[in-house]
Amino acid sequence: MTARAIVGVDWGSTNLRAFRFDPDGGVVDVRRTESGARTLRGAAFEAVLKSVIEDWLDEGASRVITCGMAGGREGWLEAPYAPCPCDMRALARNVIRAPARFAEIWIAPGAKSLRDDGRVEVMRGEETQILGGLEDERGPALVIAPGTHSKWVQVEAGRLIGFRTYMTGELFALLKEHSILGRTMNANAKHDDQAFELGVHRAIEDKGLLNLVFSTRTEVLFEHLSPEAAPSYLSGILLGAEIVEAMERTPFTADTPIFLVGDPALAKRYAQALAIAGHPGVRSLDGERAAARGLWRMAQEQAP
Amino acid sequence: MTARAIVGVDWGSTNLRAFRFDPDGGVVDVRRTESGARTLRGAAFEAVLKSVIEDWLDEGASRVITCGMAGGREGWLEAPYAPCPCDMRALARNVIRAPARFAEIWIAPGAKSLRDDGRVEVMRGEETQILGGLEDERGPALVIAPGTHSKWVQVEAGRLIGFRTYMTGELFALLKEHSILGRTMNANAKHDDQAFELGVHRAIEDKGLLNLVFSTRTEVLFEHLSPEAAPSYLSGILLGAEIVEAMERTPFTADTPIFLVGDPALAKRYAQALAIAGHPGVRSLDGERAAARGLWRMAQEQAP
Repeated sequence: MTARAIVGVDWGSTNLRAFRFDPDGGVVDVRRTESGARTLRGAAFEAVLKSVIEDWLDEGASRVITCGMAGGREGWLEAPYAPCPCDMRALARNVIRAPARFAEIWIAPGAKSLRDDGRVEVMRGEETQILGGLEDERGPALVIAPGTHSKWVQVEAGRLIGFRTYMTGELFALLKEHSILGRTMNANAKHDDQAFELGVHRAIEDKGLLNLVFSTRTEVLFEHLSPEAAPSYLSGILLGAEIVEAMERTPFTADTPIFLVGDPALAKRYAQALAIAGHPGVRSLDGERAAARGLWRMAQEQAP
Repeated sequence: MTARAIVGVDWGSTNLRAFRFDPDGGVVDVRRTESGARTLRGAAFEAVLKSVIEDWLDEGASRVITCGMAGGREGWLEAPYAPCPCDMRALARNVIRAPARFAEIWIAPGAKSLRDDGRVEVMRGEETQILGGLEDERGPALVIAPGTHSKWVQVEAGRLIGFRTYMTGELFALLKEHSILGRTMNANAKHDDQAFELGVHRAIEDKGLLNLVFSTRTEVLFEHLSPEAAPSYLSGILLGAEIVEAMERTPFTADTPIFLVGDPALAKRYAQALAIAGHPGVRSLDGERAAARGLWRMAQEQAP
């Protein structure tokens, strides 16, 4: 029996990336659209996916696997969360079949991390990306997936051990676009490294966030900071605050390797902020490649 | 010479309150409008004020004094900030004359607090309100003026010693109205005391904010919290986080009296959260009465 052709889809809130695999798991084609799950409802998921990948499919002989927000409560069909600790096999056991007619499509589960106090942490998409990106890492590692809702994840020997979410990226966007801080900044200015580092340093010294973010306004009012530098300063404050908060809560030792996975530009800022916080030598993994690898591996676990 | 009739105006970002004083400083009439400074530009300030108070004025014999955002950079005319420590006399020395034709109108300064690290904290309106509300308090006191941008103010013997701003109220509104948290909450539900207290407790235990705010979503997703209770829970988290952050940064001792000044409903929540944080017995001052008293006193200092 010939292995069936596999297509992987990383369906985020704001974009979609589709990967066409060769029989050995190599990516032979990638398509990227901005048809994120956030804007879609019901049958629109099928229509969008069909328009993106239909010409890749061998009639009846292909299998499609998606991870991310297509499985969210407001997505295509709600998929379960695999409880931590979980490995790729546990994820594969929890895939669900999408209600699509044009192809055999599976939706990956998310992952959840139960805390001692009863609270639950959840992710959708990062589990696949992280286990794909770290497939060769056997010891304990700390993985940071920065973004709208940053994840700090403990990984060991191909398993997600536990994680927490930090609302950093969304808060930055809210403050920049909708708050009084936005009125004294040039939101479209290019990155200002010095202002960014000042923000990181202050966040590490101050620790508290509610007072420090407001200085984004006063530092401009008193001409200590230009309107152009203000967004980078605010970004530095928020990344610094996330690092302070997360480092106090994530169990790891000085020799635990730290990985960043996700958007390369954002990963670069995190690496810079982590170095200021005393953690140089952080390694970056390409988020797209990691997601593709994770999707391929999940498909293999599901049915090689 | 007869004392001139005094009118006081507390001009906030979102509303305006005008007080007509008798010759002894008693308030004989109050008018409230929603013509906040945020929505006004240039000559609109004069037109609004005229429509509100013109019939109170004795031709040529009245004096009007305003505090708050009319003196802001985006207000009627930018007034200076009096540097801390400052008393009512220092504020009166820094009033500026408004460019109005229909009456003699003065705009009060704000106050600024210089920090060791060079950062500057500012307020407009609270300085008048606080020195008005605490005119009989001689020893050291801590005053909290909760709101969009909460102020924690050290006061002693009729002087503002120093203060810090916390962006709590604005952050609550942003998260409720514009973030993903708003999608799983009933934003118009009435206050839920139990959820509010849970939020306060968790903020005091957790300290970090970026992770904890996100639980407003996950606790609803996992049905630990109802969509109706979620806004109160989020409010508890933010007030609790402000109290933790501010208490660590404000010098005071166990016998320093704590006062709340401002909106009575909000002051009640702060008193409740402060009690959970180990500070019962906080006294509340009526914000409107305090502002009126401060305006009257500033007018007296300016020219009795």
